[in-house]
Amino acid sequence: MIMPDSPIRKLVPWADKAKDKGVKVYHLNIGQPDLPTPTNALDAIKSIDREILEYTPSEGIKSFREKLAKYYHKFNIDVDVEDIIITSGGSEAVTFAFMSCLDPGDEIIVPEPAYANYEAFAIVAGAIIKSLPAKIEEGFALPPVEEFEKLITPKTKGMMICNPNNPTGYLYTQSEMNKIRDLVKKYDLYLFSDEVYREFCYTGAPYISAFHLDGIEQNVVLVDSVSKRYSECGLRVGAIICKNKALRDNIIKFCQARLSPPLIGQIAAEASLDSGDDYMLNNYNEYVERRKFLIDGLNRIDGVYSPIPMGAFYTVARLPVDDSDKFCEWLLSDFQWGNQTLFLAPASGFYTIDGYGKDEVRIAYVLKKEDLAVCLKILEEALKVYSGRKR
Amino acid sequence: MIMPDSPIRKLVPWADKAKDKGVKVYHLNIGQPDLPTPTNALDAIKSIDREILEYTPSEGIKSFREKLAKYYHKFNIDVDVEDIIITSGGSEAVTFAFMSCLDPGDEIIVPEPAYANYEAFAIVAGAIIKSLPAKIEEGFALPPVEEFEKLITPKTKGMMICNPNNPTGYLYTQSEMNKIRDLVKKYDLYLFSDEVYREFCYTGAPYISAFHLDGIEQNVVLVDSVSKRYSECGLRVGAIICKNKALRDNIIKFCQARLSPPLIGQIAAEASLDSGDDYMLNNYNEYVERRKFLIDGLNRIDGVYSPIPMGAFYTVARLPVDDSDKFCEWLLSDFQWGNQTLFLAPASGFYTIDGYGKDEVRIAYVLKKEDLAVCLKILEEALKVYSGRKR
Repeated sequence: MIMPDSPIRKLVPWADKAKDKGVKVYHLNIGQPDLPTPTNALDAIKSIDREILEYTPSEGIKSFREKLAKYYHKFNIDVDVEDIIITSGGSEAVTFAFMSCLDPGDEIIVPEPAYANYEAFAIVAGAIIKSLPAKIEEGFALPPVEEFEKLITPKTKGMMICNPNNPTGYLYTQSEMNKIRDLVKKYDLYLFSDEVYREFCYTGAPYISAFHLDGIEQNVVLVDSVSKRYSECGLRVGAIICKNKALRDNIIKFCQARLSPPLIGQIAAEASLDSGDDYMLNNYNEYVERRKFLIDGLNRIDGVYSPIPMGAFYTVARLPVDDSDKFCEWLLSDFQWGNQTLFLAPASGFYTIDGYGKDEVRIAYVLKKEDLAVCLKILEEALKVYSGRKR
Repeated sequence: MIMPDSPIRKLVPWADKAKDKGVKVYHLNIGQPDLPTPTNALDAIKSIDREILEYTPSEGIKSFREKLAKYYHKFNIDVDVEDIIITSGGSEAVTFAFMSCLDPGDEIIVPEPAYANYEAFAIVAGAIIKSLPAKIEEGFALPPVEEFEKLITPKTKGMMICNPNNPTGYLYTQSEMNKIRDLVKKYDLYLFSDEVYREFCYTGAPYISAFHLDGIEQNVVLVDSVSKRYSECGLRVGAIICKNKALRDNIIKFCQARLSPPLIGQIAAEASLDSGDDYMLNNYNEYVERRKFLIDGLNRIDGVYSPIPMGAFYTVARLPVDDSDKFCEWLLSDFQWGNQTLFLAPASGFYTIDGYGKDEVRIAYVLKKEDLAVCLKILEEALKVYSGRKR
C-alpha cells in the first residue's frame, strides 16, 4: 500500500536543511502549541511510583475513562464509562473508527478542506473519500445539503466532520448540524465527528457536539484527543466515544490487537483533567488574541486573504502564488529574511480533489504574538520576491 | 472490517468477573513480565524537565535512534541511524511493515503457531496469511522447505517469522535460517522478522538475526520492541529496522500520518538502553530458572506435554482437554482452587487454520517461581475435575 505524502510533514527534510544552515524556522505547519502542558500532568509523570511499566487495559485505564465521562458531562454529552475507548492519540481513534465501521470500497463523505490525515486513515481502511469542497469565499461554510446528497451512493457508509474545523477553523452552526443530522438519519450513515478543538470556539455560541443531535446517537463515532487542549501532543492519548454497543465491541478488538494505549500518557492525561478552569481560560484568551492578530495581519498583506476562523487554532489563507506547494518548499529551501523563514502547510494536501487549494496554505497560530509578528513580516517579504507571485 | 477475537485478551471479561468474585487470577495469558523496569527508565521519566510535552519526529527521537543503532551493533546487526524508525510498540511496527509492503490480496507465509495478532495486522493490511503449521511433536521446528514452496503463488510477497518464537519459544537454527534466506532470495520475498526476544536465547548458540543472512539485506524488515526486554510494555515503543530506502520512505509516510510515537516512552526507552549488562543478566537467569521449573512441572502433570522452549518466555503445551478455548474459559468462569485460578491463552488463536491448537495453550512464564508453583498446582487440580478431560 502506497501512502501519499503528509502535507503537514512532507517538507520536514527541507526545514531540517534550513536549520542546518543556521536559519531559524517558525513552525506554523503543525498544530503543536507553544503553550505549557498543565503542571498537574507534568507532576503526575514525575511522581509515578511503579516498579513495572505495564500494559494497561486495551480500552484504557478505568479511572481515566471515568474522569473523561465526567468531563464530557460538562459539555452536555451524555456518555457512560463503557462508551469511552482510549486510543494512541486522535490518529489511532480515526483509524480504528474507519476500520471498524467500513469495509474496503465503502465511501465516506468529507467536507473539504479537511484534516489531511483523514485521507491516510481512509486509505488504511480501504475506504474512499467523496469530497465536498467548501469555498474560501464563503468562509468554508458547509456546502448545501443537495451537494451532499449528490454524492450518496449505495456504497456511502458515513460522513466525517471536524468541528471546530481543522484546517479552516470553521464552526458549524446549529442549522448546519441539523442538516447533517437529517442526512445521517435519512441514509443511516455513520457520523464520524472529530471534536478535539471543542474548547476553542470563539463566537460565543455554544459548542455543538454530534452527540447533541437527537435521534442519531447510535450512528455517532466521536473522536477526541488530549493533545491540543492540554498542549501535550507527545503523550499520544486520544479516545473514541461510541454509544453503539455492537460497533464498540468491534472497535475493542482492534484495541486488543495492539494490546494497550500508552500507560504514562494516560496517567498524565488523567491528571490534566484536573488542571482547572484557569488553565483552559488562559489558553483560550491567548488563542483569541493570536487569532485577531494573525488574521488582521494576514489580510493587511497585499494579495493575501483569510476568513476569520471561529474555532480551533488554524486558518486557511489564500496567497497570491502560483502553487502553494512550490511556495512552501521555496520558503524553506531558498528564502530567508533576517536569517529566518516560515514553515507553512500547503493546502493542496487538505483536499483530495486535484487542483484544489493550489493558492491556499494552512497556518496554525500556535506561536506567541511576537513570533507571529515576525512570521507575518517574513511572509510579506517572501511574497515580494517569490518568482511565482500572481498579480 | 470485522476483527476476530484476540486469543490473548478475549477472556479478559471472564477474568474480571472472577476477580470481582474475590478469586485471585494468575495471568499466564499475556507476555507482561513481573520483573522490574530498569531504574534508569523510571528515573528518566521522573526527571523529565520540559514545559511542553511535544510531538517527536515521526520517525522517532534522533538520540534514541542513535543509541539503538549502537545496541544493534553489539548483536552484529549492521544498521545506520536512518535505517531505524520508531513506532508505537511492536504492534504498530508489524502493522506498518505489512501495510507498507503489501497490497490488499497479497499473501504472506507464516509458520504457525504464530503470534496471534499478526493475523489482526494482516487483516488491517488486507493481506492473506498462508499458514505453515509446525508440530508440537517436533518441538515446533521449521516445517520442511518443500512445504513452504507449496504455498508460494504469484501473490506471495513475504514471509513472517518470530525468532525466538512467540508463542512456542522455538529458536531457529543456522540451517533453518539459511533455508529461509534461500527462499527469500529465490522468490524475492520480504522477510518480516520479529526479534523482540533476542535477549532471551537459552541454548548457548548465538542469536541469529535476519540481518545476519547474506544477500537479502534489502528484503528484511526487522520488527523490534523494548516492551519485553526491559519489562516496560506500557511505554508502547517499538521499531522497524529496514535497509531498503524506497520501502523506508513509504513506511515513514505511515509514520507521518499518525504524527509521532509516544514522547515519554521514547525518553524512557532511550534510558533503558543504559541499564547495563547486570540488568539483562539477572532477567535472563531468572527466565532460565522459571523455564526449567515450569516445563518440568508441566511434563509431570498427567496428560500434559510441553516441549522445552529455547528462547523467549512462552511455551505452547498440550493439555488433555477436548477444547482449550472451553477449558480456558471454564478456568475463569467456574473453577477455583483455594480461591485462585489461571488465565491461559487458548492456542487455537495462534493458528489461522480451523481446528489446530484445540488441545494446546500458550503459557507465558512471566511470574516468579513461587507463583508458577501455585499455577502448576491449579492446573493439575483443574484437569482432575474438568468435564471435557480427554483420557
